[in-house]
Formats: sequence, C-alpha cells, structure tokens
Amino acid sequence: MTPPVIDKTGLPPGTIVYSGEARTGKVKISLIEYNETELIEKDFYDVDECLTYVQPGMVKWINVDGIHDTAMIQKLGEKFNIHSLTLEDIVNTDQRPKFEDYDHYVVSIMKMLYYNSGLHSEQLTIVLLGDNTVVSFQEIDGGDAFDLIRNRIRQGKGRVRKMGADYLSYCLLDAVVDCYFSILEKIGDRIEMIEDELISNPDQETMTQLHYMKREMIFLRKAVWPMRELINNKERSETQLIRPSTDIYLRDLYDHTVRVIDTVETYRDLLSGMMDIYLSSVSNRMNEVMKVLTIISTIFIPVTFIAGVYGMNFKFMPELQSPYGYWITWAIMIGMMLSLVIYFKRKKWF
Amino acid sequence: MTPPVIDKTGLPPGTIVYSGEARTGKVKISLIEYNETELIEKDFYDVDECLTYVQPGMVKWINVDGIHDTAMIQKLGEKFNIHSLTLEDIVNTDQRPKFEDYDHYVVSIMKMLYYNSGLHSEQLTIVLLGDNTVVSFQEIDGGDAFDLIRNRIRQGKGRVRKMGADYLSYCLLDAVVDCYFSILEKIGDRIEMIEDELISNPDQETMTQLHYMKREMIFLRKAVWPMRELINNKERSETQLIRPSTDIYLRDLYDHTVRVIDTVETYRDLLSGMMDIYLSSVSNRMNEVMKVLTIISTIFIPVTFIAGVYGMNFKFMPELQSPYGYWITWAIMIGMMLSLVIYFKRKKWF
Amino acid sequence: MTPPVIDKTGLPPGTIVYSGEARTGKVKISLIEYNETELIEKDFYDVDECLTYVQPGMVKWINVDGIHDTAMIQKLGEKFNIHSLTLEDIVNTDQRPKFEDYDHYVVSIMKMLYYNSGLHSEQLTIVLLGDNTVVSFQEIDGGDAFDLIRNRIRQGKGRVRKMGADYLSYCLLDAVVDCYFSILEKIGDRIEMIEDELISNPDQETMTQLHYMKREMIFLRKAVWPMRELINNKERSETQLIRPSTDIYLRDLYDHTVRVIDTVETYRDLLSGMMDIYLSSVSNRMNEVMKVLTIISTIFIPVTFIAGVYGMNFKFMPELQSPYGYWITWAIMIGMMLSLVIYFKRKKWF
Amino acid sequence: MTPPVIDKTGLPPGTIVYSGEARTGKVKISLIEYNETELIEKDFYDVDECLTYVQPGMVKWINVDGIHDTAMIQKLGEKFNIHSLTLEDIVNTDQRPKFEDYDHYVVSIMKMLYYNSGLHSEQLTIVLLGDNTVVSFQEIDGGDAFDLIRNRIRQGKGRVRKMGADYLSYCLLDAVVDCYFSILEKIGDRIEMIEDELISNPDQETMTQLHYMKREMIFLRKAVWPMRELINNKERSETQLIRPSTDIYLRDLYDHTVRVIDTVETYRDLLSGMMDIYLSSVSNRMNEVMKVLTIISTIFIPVTFIAGVYGMNFKFMPELQSPYGYWITWAIMIGMMLSLVIYFKRKKWF
Amino acid sequence: MTPPVIDKTGLPPGTIVYSGEARTGKVKISLIEYNETELIEKDFYDVDECLTYVQPGMVKWINVDGIHDTAMIQKLGEKFNIHSLTLEDIVNTDQRPKFEDYDHYVVSIMKMLYYNSGLHSEQLTIVLLGDNTVVSFQEIDGGDAFDLIRNRIRQGKGRVRKMGADYLSYCLLDAVVDCYFSILEKIGDRIEMIEDELISNPDQETMTQLHYMKREMIFLRKAVWPMRELINNKERSETQLIRPSTDIYLRDLYDHTVRVIDTVETYRDLLSGMMDIYLSSVSNRMNEVMKVLTIISTIFIPVTFIAGVYGMNFKFMPELQSPYGYWITWAIMIGMMLSLVIYFKRKKWF
Repeated sequence: MTPPVIDKTGLPPGTIVYSGEARTGKVKISLIEYNETELIEKDFYDVDECLTYVQPGMVKWINVDGIHDTAMIQKLGEKFNIHSLTLEDIVNTDQRPKFEDYDHYVVSIMKMLYYNSGLHSEQLTIVLLGDNTVVSFQEIDGGDAFDLIRNRIRQGKGRVRKMGADYLSYCLLDAVVDCYFSILEKIGDRIEMIEDELISNPDQETMTQLHYMKREMIFLRKAVWPMRELINNKERSETQLIRPSTDIYLRDLYDHTVRVIDTVETYRDLLSGMMDIYLSSVSNRMNEVMKVLTIISTIFIPVTFIAGVYGMNFKFMPELQSPYGYWITWAIMIGMMLSLVIYFKRKKWF
Repeated sequence: MTPPVIDKTGLPPGTIVYSGEARTGKVKISLIEYNETELIEKDFYDVDECLTYVQPGMVKWINVDGIHDTAMIQKLGEKFNIHSLTLEDIVNTDQRPKFEDYDHYVVSIMKMLYYNSGLHSEQLTIVLLGDNTVVSFQEIDGGDAFDLIRNRIRQGKGRVRKMGADYLSYCLLDAVVDCYFSILEKIGDRIEMIEDELISNPDQETMTQLHYMKREMIFLRKAVWPMRELINNKERSETQLIRPSTDIYLRDLYDHTVRVIDTVETYRDLLSGMMDIYLSSVSNRMNEVMKVLTIISTIFIPVTFIAGVYGMNFKFMPELQSPYGYWITWAIMIGMMLSLVIYFKRKKWF
Repeated sequence: MTPPVIDKTGLPPGTIVYSGEARTGKVKISLIEYNETELIEKDFYDVDECLTYVQPGMVKWINVDGIHDTAMIQKLGEKFNIHSLTLEDIVNTDQRPKFEDYDHYVVSIMKMLYYNSGLHSEQLTIVLLGDNTVVSFQEIDGGDAFDLIRNRIRQGKGRVRKMGADYLSYCLLDAVVDCYFSILEKIGDRIEMIEDELISNPDQETMTQLHYMKREMIFLRKAVWPMRELINNKERSETQLIRPSTDIYLRDLYDHTVRVIDTVETYRDLLSGMMDIYLSSVSNRMNEVMKVLTIISTIFIPVTFIAGVYGMNFKFMPELQSPYGYWITWAIMIGMMLSLVIYFKRKKWF
Repeated sequence: MTPPVIDKTGLPPGTIVYSGEARTGKVKISLIEYNETELIEKDFYDVDECLTYVQPGMVKWINVDGIHDTAMIQKLGEKFNIHSLTLEDIVNTDQRPKFEDYDHYVVSIMKMLYYNSGLHSEQLTIVLLGDNTVVSFQEIDGGDAFDLIRNRIRQGKGRVRKMGADYLSYCLLDAVVDCYFSILEKIGDRIEMIEDELISNPDQETMTQLHYMKREMIFLRKAVWPMRELINNKERSETQLIRPSTDIYLRDLYDHTVRVIDTVETYRDLLSGMMDIYLSSVSNRMNEVMKVLTIISTIFIPVTFIAGVYGMNFKFMPELQSPYGYWITWAIMIGMMLSLVIYFKRKKWF
Repeated sequence: MTPPVIDKTGLPPGTIVYSGEARTGKVKISLIEYNETELIEKDFYDVDECLTYVQPGMVKWINVDGIHDTAMIQKLGEKFNIHSLTLEDIVNTDQRPKFEDYDHYVVSIMKMLYYNSGLHSEQLTIVLLGDNTVVSFQEIDGGDAFDLIRNRIRQGKGRVRKMGADYLSYCLLDAVVDCYFSILEKIGDRIEMIEDELISNPDQETMTQLHYMKREMIFLRKAVWPMRELINNKERSETQLIRPSTDIYLRDLYDHTVRVIDTVETYRDLLSGMMDIYLSSVSNRMNEVMKVLTIISTIFIPVTFIAGVYGMNFKFMPELQSPYGYWITWAIMIGMMLSLVIYFKRKKWF
C-alpha cells in the first residue's frame, strides 16, 4: 500500500502516460447541460459525438469516467485547448492535490477517498473552462458522491441550477470534502473499537491494527493537507472564472478542510497515545507473568532443598532417627512457605 | 469520545442539519433588553412572539437554549437576515471555533466546556447583529456561566449596562474563557493527584487514567487553540459593529486565551513526563521481581544439587559411610549459600 | 506544583482579585527619589502619605512589597490613572509575562524566579509612568536583586543616577534576567551532579530527580519564553516614554534573554538524553540479573537431574552396583558443568 | 556512509580542490550542438579542441564527465568567465544543492542519485551560460538519465530541438528529479518487503535493514529538500537567461519536487511506525518465552517438592507404610498439575 | 561540561567581567599591518606601545590572545571608541554568536571549536573598525586556523593582500567555519566507528559514548545555528564598512554555514537512529538469554520430577519391582526431552 511512484525517467516533460492501475474498459463521458429551466443529460463513448451536443449559454458538466484512454484525454485536451502539462497531470494518478490557474481555465487536482475494508484513493481532476464549462476526470466511476449532485441538478434543489459553472465546480469540491468527513466518521468508530479492545484484551493483533490505522492516517494526511492550500489558492486566485459570489462558499469549504485536518491530527495523537497504552500493557503483563513465576519458585525452591537434604543417604544423620523428625521437618517447611507468602502479600505482589 | 463527525455527503451546501445529540425538548428563547435605566426580561417558546417585545434603542440579548429545532433557527435566521451558511454552522455541532464577518453581522462560534466526571463540550454561537442586538445559541442550557452575566445585568454591576451590544458579546466570550480556567484548575488538581499516586503506588489503572487525561488534553487543545485566532480576528476585524472602546477588552481576552493555551501545553508536557515515570517505574519493579527470583534460585539451586548427589543410591559412595559426612555436607552447603549472599550484597542487589 | 489557575468565572472583567498565596502582612511602599545630585529614600505603609513626599523633576521609584492589599493597589491605580485591566493583571499572580503600552504609561509583567530547594516564582510588575516615575509591584520582598540596584542608586555607581526613569525600568528588567542566569547556573550544577550519579549508580530516586528537573525546566521555560516577546515589544514600542538612548540597552537585554532561552532548551535536551541513559541502564542491569539466573540455573539443573536419576529406588539399576558408578557419575556431571561454563564464556556472558 | 566532509581549513577561499573519491581516468568532454535542423555531436579530451567546434547561433551542450581534473575545470572556467567560487563549488563534491545567479550565467548544483545495492550520490552542476550554452559537470558518467535526453535531441522528439538552452537546462533538471522518482519506487518496494517480513518473521536482521533504510531516507532527504528551494529560486530569479516560456515547466518541476519530498516524509513516517512494530513484537515474543517458562516451572516445581518429601529417609513416616500412599500421592500431584493448567487456561496464557 | 552560566546579578549593565576559565598569563597583542607591497608584523604586551606602530593607509589586524586582562581590553576599547556593552560581550565567554552594527564599527562574536578528546570551545570576537582595522579577541592562542591566514598574508597568496579590512574579517570568519568542517569530519569518523561497534558488539560503554556524542551535537548545534543568522545579518547590514565586492564571499560563507548545520542535523538523526538500534539489540540479547534459560529449564524440570517420583520411599510402588522399570523410565524421560527439543526447534527458538 505504499503509494505508487511512477518511473518516467527520460521521457520528455509533458508526455501523457497513464500511471494508475491497469484498466481496459471503455471510457464513458457523461454530459449534463442545464440552465434554470432546461436540462439535457446524455452519455457518450466518443469525444466528438459529445461535443456536437454542446449548447451555447448553458452550463455544461462533462464527466470522464476513466483516464486510462490517453488518446481520448489528448483529444479532449486539444478541443478545449488544455496545456499538455495539465493533461500529463490528469492521467498521472500520483499527483499531489493542487490548484493551477492557466488564463483561460483553472484546474483542481485532488484525491477522492473511499473507505471499504481499507482506505482507497482515486485521483479526481476538475477543470473549470471559461464561463460555463466544467470537465471532471475520474479514475473509476466516483459513484454516490457525484450522483447526489446530479440528482440535485435534476431536481433543481438548492442553488445549483441558478448559478454558473464556478458554483458547480465548488459543489464538486464540496462533495469531495464531505467524503472525507464520512471517512473520518468510519475511522473514528474503528478507533473507539480498538481502544475498547486495548483496555479489555490487547494482543499483537491489536498492535497490527493500530499500525494499519496509523498508516492510513499517514496517507489520509498526505491527501488532505494539500487540499487546504488548494482551496486557499482557488479562493485567492485572481482568475475571472470564479465570481465573487462563489468566494463565500469557498471560504466555508476552507473551514471544512481545516476541520478535516484538525480531526486527522487529533486521530494521529489518539493513535500514538494508544500505542503507548499497548506497550505499557505488554510490560505490565510481562510483570504479572514474572511475578507468578517468582512467587511459585521462591516458595517451593527452599523447601525442596530441605526435602532433598533429608533424602540423603548418609549413614549417620541423627534427625532421621527421631520419631518427631518428620513432623518437625513438615512444620519447618510449612513455616518457610507461609512466611514467604506473607512477604509477598506485604509487597502487594498478589 | 472521539469527536462526532457528521456525514453530510451529497447534501447541498448550506443545508441546515442538526448534528448534536438527539434532543426533543421545546427550545426556550430568553430575551433581555436593557439600557442604563430600564430592564426587560422574558422567556418565550416562539420566535414571532419574542420579536414583538423588541424595543428600539435598547440593547437586546436573545439567548436560544437548544439548537435541535432547525425550523425555529431558520425562522430566526430569516428575521435577522442571517446567511444560510451561518445557520448551517450554528446547528452543526462539530464546528471549529471561528470568527466570521458578514457586513451586517459578525458571528463567533466556539466550544463551551464543562468538567463533570470527564470533559464535555457544547457548541455556542454568538451573533452580534447591528448596533444593539446579540443572539446567542447554545446546545443545552449553559447554566451558571451565563447566569452570572444575567445577574450582573440585573444588578447593574460593572460596566455592562452602560455599554453597547459589542461589550455584551465580549462579556459572553469572556465567560467562556473563564470557564476554561476553571476547567484547567480542576485538571491541574487531578494531575497532582495522579502524580502522587504515580510515585507512591503506580499500577495499570494509573496508566489508564493518564491516558484519559492525555485524551482530554487533546480535545481541550482542539477547542482552545482556534479561540486565539477567533479573538485575534475579532479584534482586527474592520467591522463597524465593534467600537474601538471594546478593543482593549478583546486584547485582554486574547492574553487570557494565550495563557489558557500555555497552560494546556504545560499540562501536556507534564503528562508526557509522567508517562515516562510510569514506564520507568514498571521497568524498575520488574527488575526487583527478577532480582528476588534470581537471588532465591541462585542460592538454593546449587545446594539442592549437592543434596541430590548424596541422595543417590550407588553402592559404593565412601562419603556416606563417614560419621562426619553429613555435617561436612551441611557445612559445605551453608558455606555456598553464605558466599552467594555476600556476592549479592556486594552487587547491592538487596 | 502545577501552576495555580484562578477561577474568576462570572466576575465582571477588570475585577481586581488577588490570586497568589494567602498573605496578611502590611504592605510596605518604598520610595526612592533621585537626580544626579540628590537622593531621598523612605518607607511608607500608606499611599497618600507616600505621595506627599513626591518631588517634581526627580526620578521616582515606588516599590510596593505585597499585592494582597487590593484596596491599596486600587487607590494607587486611581492616583496614577492606571486602567482597571492593568490593576487586575497586577494582582492576578498567574499572568503570562507581557508588555503593554497604554498611552500615558507602559507596563511590563514578568516572573521573578528564586531557586531555593526548588524553583519558586513571584510575579513582578513594572509600570513606567510619564517621564520620571517607575512603580514596581512584588508579591513578596524581592530581596537581593533589587537591593543591589538600590545600592547602585545610593552610591551613584554606573549610569543610573544620570539617566531617566526609562533607564531605571530597564535596570529592573536587567536584574530579573540576571536572576535567570544565576538560576540556570544552579540548575546546570545539579544536572552535572545527576549525570555523574546516572553513570555511577542510577536508581529510581535518580529518575524521580530527573523528572523534577524536567518539570522545573517546563516552568522555567513558561516563564522565560514570553520575556523575549516582552522585551522585543518594549524595544519596538512607539511609546514616547522610552528614550532612543535606552534602546541599545534593551537590544542587549534581548540578546541575554535569547541566551537564557537557548540554555533552557539545551538543558531540556540534556535531560531527555539523560532519561534515555537511565532507561538503557535499567535494561542493562535487568540483562545482568537475567544472565546470572540463567547461568546458575543452566549449570545446575541438568546435573541435578542426573543426581535425581540415581536417587531412584528401582530394584534393577545396574549402574548402582558398579564400584566405579559413583565416580563416573561425578565425572559426567563435572563435564556437563564445565562445558556449559565454557559455552557461556564463549558467548561472553561473564 | 556518513557524508564526506572536506577539511579545507586554512586554504584561501575560492581554492579549487577536488573532494570526491580519488579518480584518475581522463576526463571526457561531450559536445552536442543543435538547432531545429542541424545536429553536431562529438567527444573531446581537451578543452581548446572542443571550443574550436563551437558554432554561433546553435544551442551548445558541453557535458564534462569527471571533475577530478581541476586544471581542465579551471581552464574551462576561464574560457567561459566563471567565478572561482563557482569552480570551487563544482569540484567540491559535498555541496548543498543550490541555485546561484551571476549576471552572465546561472548555476544549479544538485545531487544525482543511483540506487544500486544502496544509495549512491554524485554531484551534478549545470551552468547556463548566456543565450545558448549549457555546461554540465558530472563526477562519473551519469549514464542512462542523460542518454535519454541525448536521444531525444538526436531524434528531434518533443520540444527540445525547437527551444533554447534554458529549456535544455530545465530538461537536465527534470531528468534528475525523474531519477528521484525511480529511486523512491525501488525504496517503496523494499519497504513493502520489509513490512511483510516484519509481520511474518521479524529478527535483528530486519531491524538492521530498517536502520539502513532510515539512514538512506536521511541522506535522500538531505539531497532532496534543497532542490525545492533551488527550483523555486530558479523560477523566481530575475535573470534574463531564462525565458518566460520556460517558467511554466519550472513550476511543474517544482510540483514534482514537492511530491518527492512528500513521499520521502511519508516513507520516514512509515519506517518509524515499522520500528515501533518491531520493538513491540520483540516484547511480545519475550512475553511468549516467559510464559512458557512460567507455565512449565509453575506446574512442575510444586509436585517435585511433593516427590522430594516422600523421598526423605525419616524412620517414622506413616504415609510410606500405607499401601495406598503411593497412589494417593500421584492423585494429589496430578490434581495440583491439573488445577494449575486450568488456572493458566483461564488467564488465557495458552 | 554544561555551559558556564555567569552570575552577574546586581552588577550594573555594561560591567566588564571576565567569565571564562581562570587564566593569569600575560596577554599578547599581535599586530600585522599590510598593503599590497609592504608587511609589518610585531608582537606586544602593551596597548599603547602597539598603537604607536600603527601606520595610516595600511590594513591593520590586531589580534589579542587572551581576554582575562579586562583592564587592557578596557583601554583598547577606549582607544578605538568601542561601546562598553561590546566590551562586556567580548570578555563574557558565554555569548551567543551574534553580529552587531554600531555605526563606526561592526562586531561579530562567535565560537571557535577544537576537537581534542572532546569538543572544546573558545569565544572569538572580530571587530571591524572603520576602513582598515580589524581587532580580534581570542580566549587562548587560536593556533593553526589563524596561523594559516597569517601565512597567506606573509606570502601574499590569494586575494588577501590586495583587499581591505572587510575582506580580512571575512577570511577570519571563513577560517572559523572551515574549523567546523574539520570537526564534523572527525565526528563523522567517530560515528562510523561507533556504528560498527554497535552492530558487532554493543555494550553499556557504547551507549555512554553515544550519549557523549549526542551531548556534543547539542553544544555544536548551539554554537553553529546562530552563525547562520550572524553571517546573514552581516551580509544584509547596511553598514558602509563592508564593500559590495565582499558580499559575494559572505553569500558563499552563508552557504557553507547552512551546510554545516545540515550536517549537524543529519548527525543528530543518525545518533538517534543508533540509540534505537542499541536499545533494540539490548532487548534482543535479553530475549536470547531468556530463551536459553527457558529451553534448559523446560527440558529438565519435567524429567527431574519423574526421577523424583521414583526416588520416593513408599513401601508399595509396583514399578520399582519391575525388572524393566528403570529402562522404561529412561525411555519416557528421553522421549519427553526429545519432544520438547522438537517443539522448540519448530518454534525456531534455536
């Protein structure tokens, strides 16, 4: 689960090489065009065909589900006049989240995260082009998060139908950050579960789980930290493409991101604390084990010695002849054992 | 006790969803209107009714006890022209403390903390509207802290009756920060108690308590750190709503907050130091246990061997026939034991 | 020794409440007035009486020994027109060191530290009023540090009689920072002592001492860090009360404070390193103990088994009848013991 | 593998002393000259000869393979009017990566890294001289990374033939950063391998490997961190030598470097987490060993005592005469052993 | 080896008190005057005598070897009009490295370090006075480092004879930083040595050495970190005393200092990693010891019990009568031992 690092040594800069998991399926392009009154929705498997449907004056959201078809990305890039460095970033799935402002378009690259028996991430690129076009690129079908936005567009709920492409691009970002919150919720639950386990019955398995959680926090943090900068840059960008009315929403989104980061840091602190608890409880259990061994050994070793002494076969051992010798020996042995038990009781060893 | 993270995935931004503990009771609105000479005080369960009582020219403090009735919050928001993003923040109890300046109002969101067999937090929002209105929103009845301010208003003590709504909003903030001090006092006492325990008689229970204290410091810190920024932003804000005469009080409040943060950091350092003490004392006790085991084993194992030797049944063992054999054997065994005791004494093992 | 945190919940801001240790003695006010040629020195127990002695044109240093008499502080505050927030700070002994600039006076609040079988701190406030008045407030009689300045004034040594009140206020600050150096010297000696102990004969007591030293460093640091900011703020303040000629001394004082902080940080690093040494030496001693146990057990357990075998009472045991059986058994046992000794020697266990 | 530190104490500043591994081979100079249509490529072992081949109006890339021949570097420096401090930096292989702007040339010094059974580094200096000359200095033949650029120039692929020397210098930097990615990929693989080992079968060898990996990360980090500053300085430099059209590529390169640094930091965090896992697994195994010892000892020591008792040779021991004594003793011994087994089972010791 | 902290409590600021080791020897003043063609070199033990030799128009380097003669320092200070705060700093050997700009002179205070069976430091002050005078103050004869500069001046090698006093003061700084490199080289060697020891044969001695190395790094760091600021301040200072032509050398020196700091930080990281290795290897050896004990005990304790059983003296023990009893018992005992050996083999305990 170490992050993939792509070896592009020696390739000319700007070369468009897909670097995610190998995929072969056809790439679907979904077009949604809307204004306050009209709504067109259609899926395509071809760029040209898609573009014939584009209407002036309406907000267009072109969502590309799959970025392994670099030829199609290239074509789309040419149609919309997107710089080859941007195209390279779109298909290289190991990007650091960032915002970039090219005069006629702005691009936000980020990580969409899923929590599904472990943390998975997918690269998502949102290109805001001119006044009324948003093109989004996903590695795989982003599923629920974007469907909910689609539904809002279809039903005309909220502000989205009344506002421009800049607001749409904000909505997509907002959906991504909301995803982070739902992941944090799941992780929070798991942390609580592990904490209970830690106090009731810690074992090496708990430690391994803690380790995996910690590693997930490392990756989550790597994905989330740059989002702050991204949104900040978007808000402060001097681009004409984002209207001032959208700024207040970006500021709110920025606060959300800071909250996500705060929570990630809190979780990291909690996990470190739990690691300490685990190690201290291992030490304590070792201590318990040692105490049991010491108590038993210390009680029986001296009396076993006494028994050994009177098991010797010397010819002349006066005690052996005494009729009370046996009972006196028992008395001595029991006395020794009792005094050791009392000693340990006083030391609070049990 | 991991902080609640609310899953709002897919909801349009600005949707007002209550995210605290489920509550159902009726929401009480308390209105206090005052100027230097007059004072009106009344409780309501309805927004409209409350607003009919509002008098021009007086300072108004509308306190809402309970934020689970989102419809009422919505209504209040409309009456006072509060942005839907602010309303969303008021009812989402997982906000990060922050200050925001909307031209006609400023809003401070923070955490009120209680220490009552553990640290509890409640979200508190203070909206300063125009010249003379403060609206405050609490999850539950904030109890003592605000009652003391109410008493001051009733009795006309201090400056509060002579000054405007901005001073009132400062007083509320000040009450919150004072709460932090009283919590720190309680925590300080507990730290001292645990420290005594740590030195006299540490056990796994002490460790668990340390862990809980540490976790509380993490949450306290998360609540308190952003307060600094909040108050700083409030002081530096260019809003017309806060008069210059209130600035000096905000500066003082800022110093208080820095002091709270300093103390939280000091406590964190202390707790870390105590963790080290605990771990070292566990190691030391293990060492003691091992020493006891080693001393006893080492003293008795060799002599038990000697006894074993003379317990053998060989036909021809000359020592067994000697009349002094038994006594010589005892002498040897006691000699061995004594020399080991001296050896351990010299090594300072006991 | 956790720092006192004062619960002022619900009191109006600016309320003057003494928060240090309970004290009852009468508060002494010492007045020193001087210029290059004249010197008046007198002690009072009453504010009004003191002020009748004040002469125009001379530098006045009014030192208040004890801040538990809040009524007197209040009176003094009124006479000199000091803001109630400042008065609150003077008597609240849990202040963070800070510098504040009120137009007609500037105030520096700091901690005077004593090292006397442990670190003690006292709050000290220095108010520079107008051209030629310094008022200083101490919890208890500050003793030597200020006496030395008094002597310098009396004897006219150094620059102090030739310069104004701003230079006097610098001298007081300088005396406080010099105190820090002498404390660091004492702590440095203790660290060296503990380090020697750590290498020659570490025990749990050493650990406890390390812990107390660490805690003292935490408090020292809390007192010293803000001094840097204090002096920096004083130097950069745009107040007219501090003449440019004093700036060079403040810059020098700033360097001293940075040096104090550097040394505190160095000591913290040293103490952390010593903690590591301690823990590693505990591990090593445990290792030694285990080795002794293992060597003794491993040498004697197998031969004790052999002895046990020939102590069995089986009717038919051919070895027992052999005239050499006993000696051969001894040979075997000694051989086993020797080979184990050699094995441990090779493993360098002793 | 500690970094070499060169002792130049007392030498005048600007003295050109080679500080890398001792090498003696002849230094090869490769010249590539090109414009959009023409390409000249030739190797030399002499500076003067090389310079006779230089054509005006074409982009020139002079690559020096080996910097131990300080006389040649000196000569080259004089021909191109390079400052002696720069020449000193070129041959001192312990430079910190940096960018420097001398009016008529800019110089970037960095580390080329190889991963070949351990991390190796080589110093690389790129001097961009005037409009159309790049001089690069390598310790040893840089191999593949630069060959790929040479191929691109030969084949006229990509943009390189159409653009100036500033773009060429960017391409070289880009090749270096690409190298870092391919090293991170290899290290990522090794980390995953070690992690698997750590969970299945950790031993001291794994720890040593972890240590070496950590040390490599320290060196990698030392090489990579300053690259960020280098590229940033290059981008922001006000030099006329870098055309604005190259800036966008430098910005992209900057992002790549930040990504490298991010990954290095992530790997460091992962390695620290793995160290914790290792230590906790050592503790756990110790615990297991102790449990086995304790269980066996505790079960057999008491019954061995019983057997010892009835091995005593007292004349009067009534039990010994009983016909059932032997069987009853067995029953008691087995009972004791069983109850201890049950006790340990309940304690979940096995 | 804790840094000396001087108690100057109560002394007036600017008092010149020597704070280094007690020394009594006479203080030597060495004068070197030079320009491109002439060179005068002479030693004195008296300030006035020295100053009579001073020639206008030549660069003068006055080096004072010993600062315990405060009267002489005072006299020199008066002759050159040096502020008493500067003189105080020169003789107080516990200064933090710093640069200060007094209009008619600039002063750099730093630490010269020696590595001679441990790290030793000496305070060095360089005062650049007016156009052509450098006065340097050393605690003891600085030895080699400055001799090399003297030789360069004598032989007219390098640039030094052609340039002014500002370049000379740079050369002295450069010699100090070169010293740091040679110390780092020695420390690097020692780190490598200890690392080898750590892997082949670690003991408590290694740990103590690691601790001393760590402490040295703490002091080295304390001396080196402020150098960066010092040189930066010198470079950015607006003083007329440093010509622009010297700036490029200062920039280079700054890079060197950053390199020193980088290396110090790297060494600190390495030492921390080595500490971890040590602790883990102690744990591992403990594990080995425990395993030996457990294997031997576990193999012999059960069979010793069997032997004990048949050593009992019960009258009626049928096994004892059987002619094969002895052999069967042996078979059982060997079987038990073997199965335990196999069990431990499977668990990979040996």
